[in-house]
Amino acid sequence: MQRVKAVICYDGTHFSGWQVQPGKRTVQQEMERALTRIHKGEHTPVVSSGRTDSSVHALGQVIHFDTTLAVPEDRWPKALNQLLAPDVQVMETSFVDSSFHARFDAVEKTYRYRVHLTKERDIFRRHYVYFYPYPVRVEDMKQAAPYLTGTHDFSSFCSSRTDVTDMVRTVHEITVEEDGDELHFTFRGSGFLYNMVRIMAGTLLEVGKGLRRPEDMPAVVEAKNRESAGNTAPGHALYLVEVRYE
Amino acid sequence: MQRVKAVICYDGTHFSGWQVQPGKRTVQQEMERALTRIHKGEHTPVVSSGRTDSSVHALGQVIHFDTTLAVPEDRWPKALNQLLAPDVQVMETSFVDSSFHARFDAVEKTYRYRVHLTKERDIFRRHYVYFYPYPVRVEDMKQAAPYLTGTHDFSSFCSSRTDVTDMVRTVHEITVEEDGDELHFTFRGSGFLYNMVRIMAGTLLEVGKGLRRPEDMPAVVEAKNRESAGNTAPGHALYLVEVRYE
Repeated sequence: MQRVKAVICYDGTHFSGWQVQPGKRTVQQEMERALTRIHKGEHTPVVSSGRTDSSVHALGQVIHFDTTLAVPEDRWPKALNQLLAPDVQVMETSFVDSSFHARFDAVEKTYRYRVHLTKERDIFRRHYVYFYPYPVRVEDMKQAAPYLTGTHDFSSFCSSRTDVTDMVRTVHEITVEEDGDELHFTFRGSGFLYNMVRIMAGTLLEVGKGLRRPEDMPAVVEAKNRESAGNTAPGHALYLVEVRYE
Repeated sequence: MQRVKAVICYDGTHFSGWQVQPGKRTVQQEMERALTRIHKGEHTPVVSSGRTDSSVHALGQVIHFDTTLAVPEDRWPKALNQLLAPDVQVMETSFVDSSFHARFDAVEKTYRYRVHLTKERDIFRRHYVYFYPYPVRVEDMKQAAPYLTGTHDFSSFCSSRTDVTDMVRTVHEITVEEDGDELHFTFRGSGFLYNMVRIMAGTLLEVGKGLRRPEDMPAVVEAKNRESAGNTAPGHALYLVEVRYE
């Protein structure tokens, strides 16, 4: 048995997120379908670094699976990409020790949130950016971001639909960058709670709109109450960019 | 009765082209559905500058329609965009004389063809560029392009599925430009035959690949035979950019 680590990307538009759900098209289901086919019908489960929500994209999700096939380490992308739907792709693969675990061994994740700052909706980006036709104060958002970093109980930024009880996470860095007519928030941290990145993006946008001040942020964190933070920004503008391991 | 000229854009991915066809989703059908709704059920036909094929996009298609409604000239985009599907959009509108005709009065059209030059397919651009994982000689394509301009019988670049009998068109300019990892062909001319731009794009790519020489182009035009030109490049990488009127 050989454990394989794979870096994959997917366009989340037509997926109901990562995790297998009855009657829904999910990325996990699509990966397992291709792997089961290559294994001549033997079900081959896949473990990812974590779930992504419906319509959320991935540029660098990491998964692992076990195989008895004699496919060489670097041939897995081509072998799988021939079987996968056009909206998922295996970018690179490597053989790892059987103790490697895509979820438990992840030490850092990076997410990006893309905001389209314009009065004119771009239909070609409708599945990929959050259309935000309001004037925003970028400097205020840049000032607010560092208040959301560090090690905290992030209950204020966690959707109530979660089974997790330990709400403490460490956010290493949040950057706010302009890129043409887009604004990109990049979040790098040890891990994120359910909807945490989308709630942080929504809260930063409320700062940008002048509805909150940068210096209000510490109180939002300290409240440990979902009501204190801003709206959950839509999923279709969120990208899982990278997952790091030791 | 007021005639309205409108500039519209659409993402062709989920459309079976412009023209109404039974049982298919088309852009004309979607425009007429919205217009008929705003006219309280009275069927409102739409005329465009010309058809576009299945999966072909438009950044600046031009249409006209007649109305009895008292909607101000500049309010039409907002009124219609509220009723249109998210993959079509009215960008600007103006009142025109009742003699204006979107097809017959068009004096110049510009199309763009986007080629993605890379070994790595980008799943996020799969509906928008032609993935071309081969080395190409850009200079050869730049040399070949001018041979395809001018006033000619362009039968070599016309798909056999056409009712048109006059095959003479004038191509004003064809440019070949690199833009990051993409190659853009831009075609500007008085009008184009059925599939003409896609066949020209396919032929230029064969020059780029070294299968044809730039100086072979005059003979391809002179042959007046579809067999002499290259393959028809796929529709999903083609954009109707602009339609000009006197």
